[in-house]
Amino acid sequence: MPFETALPMRKRDLLALIGRSAGASAMYLAMTSLGHAQPSPFRGVPRLEGGAKGASVLILGGGLAGLVSALELSRAGYKVELLEYNDRIGGRSWTLRGGDTFTELGGAKQTCEFASGNYINPGPWRIPHNHYAVMHYCHELGVALEPFMQLNYNAYVHSAKAFGGVPQRYRHIQADFLGHVSELLAKAVKADALGDAVTKEDAEILLASLRNLGALDKDYRYVMGQPSSERRGWAKGPGGGLSAKPVPSEPLDLTTVLQSGLWRHISNSLGSTHHTAIFQPVGGMDAIPRAFAPHLGDMVRLNAKVTAIRQDETGVTAAYTDTRTGEKRTARADWCICTIPLSILSQIEMNVGGDMAAAIGAVPYAASLKVGLEFRRRFWEQDEQIYGGITMTDLPIGQISYPSSGYGRPGPATLLGAYGFGAFAFEYTSLAPAERIARTVEWGSRIHPQYRDEFMNGVAVGWHRVPFTQGCFGQWTDDLRAEHYDNLCQIDGRIMLAGEHASYIPAWQEGAVTSALDAIARLHQRVMSA
Amino acid sequence: MPFETALPMRKRDLLALIGRSAGASAMYLAMTSLGHAQPSPFRGVPRLEGGAKGASVLILGGGLAGLVSALELSRAGYKVELLEYNDRIGGRSWTLRGGDTFTELGGAKQTCEFASGNYINPGPWRIPHNHYAVMHYCHELGVALEPFMQLNYNAYVHSAKAFGGVPQRYRHIQADFLGHVSELLAKAVKADALGDAVTKEDAEILLASLRNLGALDKDYRYVMGQPSSERRGWAKGPGGGLSAKPVPSEPLDLTTVLQSGLWRHISNSLGSTHHTAIFQPVGGMDAIPRAFAPHLGDMVRLNAKVTAIRQDETGVTAAYTDTRTGEKRTARADWCICTIPLSILSQIEMNVGGDMAAAIGAVPYAASLKVGLEFRRRFWEQDEQIYGGITMTDLPIGQISYPSSGYGRPGPATLLGAYGFGAFAFEYTSLAPAERIARTVEWGSRIHPQYRDEFMNGVAVGWHRVPFTQGCFGQWTDDLRAEHYDNLCQIDGRIMLAGEHASYIPAWQEGAVTSALDAIARLHQRVMSA
Repeated sequence: MPFETALPMRKRDLLALIGRSAGASAMYLAMTSLGHAQPSPFRGVPRLEGGAKGASVLILGGGLAGLVSALELSRAGYKVELLEYNDRIGGRSWTLRGGDTFTELGGAKQTCEFASGNYINPGPWRIPHNHYAVMHYCHELGVALEPFMQLNYNAYVHSAKAFGGVPQRYRHIQADFLGHVSELLAKAVKADALGDAVTKEDAEILLASLRNLGALDKDYRYVMGQPSSERRGWAKGPGGGLSAKPVPSEPLDLTTVLQSGLWRHISNSLGSTHHTAIFQPVGGMDAIPRAFAPHLGDMVRLNAKVTAIRQDETGVTAAYTDTRTGEKRTARADWCICTIPLSILSQIEMNVGGDMAAAIGAVPYAASLKVGLEFRRRFWEQDEQIYGGITMTDLPIGQISYPSSGYGRPGPATLLGAYGFGAFAFEYTSLAPAERIARTVEWGSRIHPQYRDEFMNGVAVGWHRVPFTQGCFGQWTDDLRAEHYDNLCQIDGRIMLAGEHASYIPAWQEGAVTSALDAIARLHQRVMSA
Repeated sequence: MPFETALPMRKRDLLALIGRSAGASAMYLAMTSLGHAQPSPFRGVPRLEGGAKGASVLILGGGLAGLVSALELSRAGYKVELLEYNDRIGGRSWTLRGGDTFTELGGAKQTCEFASGNYINPGPWRIPHNHYAVMHYCHELGVALEPFMQLNYNAYVHSAKAFGGVPQRYRHIQADFLGHVSELLAKAVKADALGDAVTKEDAEILLASLRNLGALDKDYRYVMGQPSSERRGWAKGPGGGLSAKPVPSEPLDLTTVLQSGLWRHISNSLGSTHHTAIFQPVGGMDAIPRAFAPHLGDMVRLNAKVTAIRQDETGVTAAYTDTRTGEKRTARADWCICTIPLSILSQIEMNVGGDMAAAIGAVPYAASLKVGLEFRRRFWEQDEQIYGGITMTDLPIGQISYPSSGYGRPGPATLLGAYGFGAFAFEYTSLAPAERIARTVEWGSRIHPQYRDEFMNGVAVGWHRVPFTQGCFGQWTDDLRAEHYDNLCQIDGRIMLAGEHASYIPAWQEGAVTSALDAIARLHQRVMSA
């Protein structure tokens, strides 16, 4: 019962007690803190009770939305067939390893040359603990998880325009920013400059809390000394034996920190989708689709390129081509859950109503590029003591993410050398793969000069050239959502859509899974009430 | 060459360039950011060159200081014998598993009943990435490391005196504290209340940085809405399909956050010894001493209780008792490195000078208690979505630390149910083990009511009752250090001391290892110059 939502009796008693004694606001706080009000709407897999009445469902697309739909509908008694374009399931939940090949739009073919055990995830790569639906399937299907190192204090923040282009350790920028901000506010408190925003009683506590946040000295100053060095790191750390006394490091001044712009990266780990605990599947993201496979038996037909989707009063027929043989075939079922990305679906003939058709055509797909690089050794660990985590930069590569596994291991290792969005991603994607990789190595060597000597090989996935998505994820705006989102998610005759594009969690697997769970629940309701 | 300190040529060029163009301050910054100025003084194992001249060294104590000394001295050609009191090496680097027994001072014997694969580390349990010396030996000896989850935003912060004793999620307290603090300072900036502490130019940047830090809205307010909910978590998180729109959560007000006192826990993960990346050995801390064992051959004599240490002009003799047979024996060598904790050493007859003797007697040992509890299931994960990390509380248990491994695994699991210091630790230690465990379960059930139904068994280690240390670690003060530290670390005739007590990193394995490396370097110098 890992996702039971009913509270045990003692908790209920406690809540009742709090409710009686402290009113609704305390009650809400208590509920929140007892885990009742939760960041994900996932409350367990919907119960599809009452049998399937012999109904059949055709599922288009074998990414996470399709896999979840197939698993749960077949468990509920539906007859399920799933068509998948690729020669593998998983969709964007995809891992590239040595020996894998990948041909993009335009025909450029890449062969991944990574050493055994090395990989990159060109698509999703992290699982936040609060993505409960994905966590549920990982637990249920036995996908081993390991922590993803989202924040590493010893990784760099970098701007070509600050510190002469020399990368800074995150811990220096973070400690110094928090220190100066705390000192400034403490000054304002002591000068009684905050008006009635803070009571006299609170002001005392606020001062203590600012000293705690900013590592201020007894006079509420952020200066060179033990408190600040214990945050940002010492110039010479404490050791053992004689001459072991630590030497403090000198903080950057406020102006330097502010004008560097590097403070903006402090918020990278503060957002709830990047909060610890955050995970990755051991060995690659495709461990998730692989864990679905044994449960799907012969429901899945690979290498099936859907060319048309036609519904009538009794069912839905999909025309598809077997991409290995060129053979044209059809599949038919009573209902269809289509998880094909809108970028592709908008190019496929399908007889749905005008509202859904308009929605399908309305959502642009974001550009994104990921480049995996393999190096002869883990120089980031060995030379720079960076074990996992992410270096942020304003260079076109966007970031460098070091592997969150195999720490300390000798031999070749891979890192994510570029993860770009927007204009840069479009530009990169327009280049040939070898050129994307060369530029990634060139940019990255500004941060890690070892790149030049240690680089072995790379793979570069520009999502707008990936045949099965032609883009990275559905890029909704508030206006687009207001006009189209509900129309996209409605049942249209016998067709429903699912996928990250049919969610409020774009680009995340959780969006795909929760959209599938919502779709199958509504489909089942429709079938049961028919 | 994993710890080479010489910079590759390109880095040197870069430094020279920066030095020329920007002066010393920029040079220092650049050196720091290129990893040259480092938080640990460890620069690799000292080279003990020139042979050992046939010299022999007697090492007393087989904790990390003793093991490092034995390994490196034997590699350098010294004849090494190591006496260890316990029937295992490792000292405080110790792991308790099912079937292990442990008898404390006073005679109470505990048998650990954990299921296979479960354990607790009663002593050190974390390895910060900046503890370079320990990291070096883990890498060299092949100790597999996995991330220790130091900070978990979904774990609790708890005070018996706040929120009616109801635990709060860390993410709520942290986001709301940073939010309100940022709003207050933004107000002061806009009211021009900071005087000349901030220039006009910086003020604009400061405002932007505060919005970024505090998740403020466009008017620099921290209020209920998307920005704050994306930090602290939503009341109802975003989902997929229809009804997927997220519902914001309501922040706590400033007074509530301040008066709760829970803001003090925000700094727990900001200190450099708790910065990510931070690790634990896979399977238990004793993986480190176990990795030394194959390299030490027959140098180690277990079950050897040292009763007297006597030096003369030609060497050092230790009298010891074989604790299995009661037999009294002696060991002799040219030199002695004694790593026995001062709490024990001060009770052993040893002819060193008055300065070292005074130092040995001067340092009190800190009290500490750790209680490991085993439960039928990972209710903290299953019911409360807490995967690893630490819940902080002002109850006597101090904290609850959830396992940083086996995430999602069914079946029994262990957590650290208490980690207390000071008065509470003394009080707990005075109780019988069963009573310590019972109280730990009782206190902990205030935070996790599931304790009552799911508890299986526990072990409780009160360090003042541990026969081989009689305390947790040497509790230096600034005054004690000024008077005694150097005297403790000097070579006294043919005797040297090493261990965490002979370091500026008390209680950490890094202190023991760096003190041993310093001791053997100075010993070797003495031998070479003799």
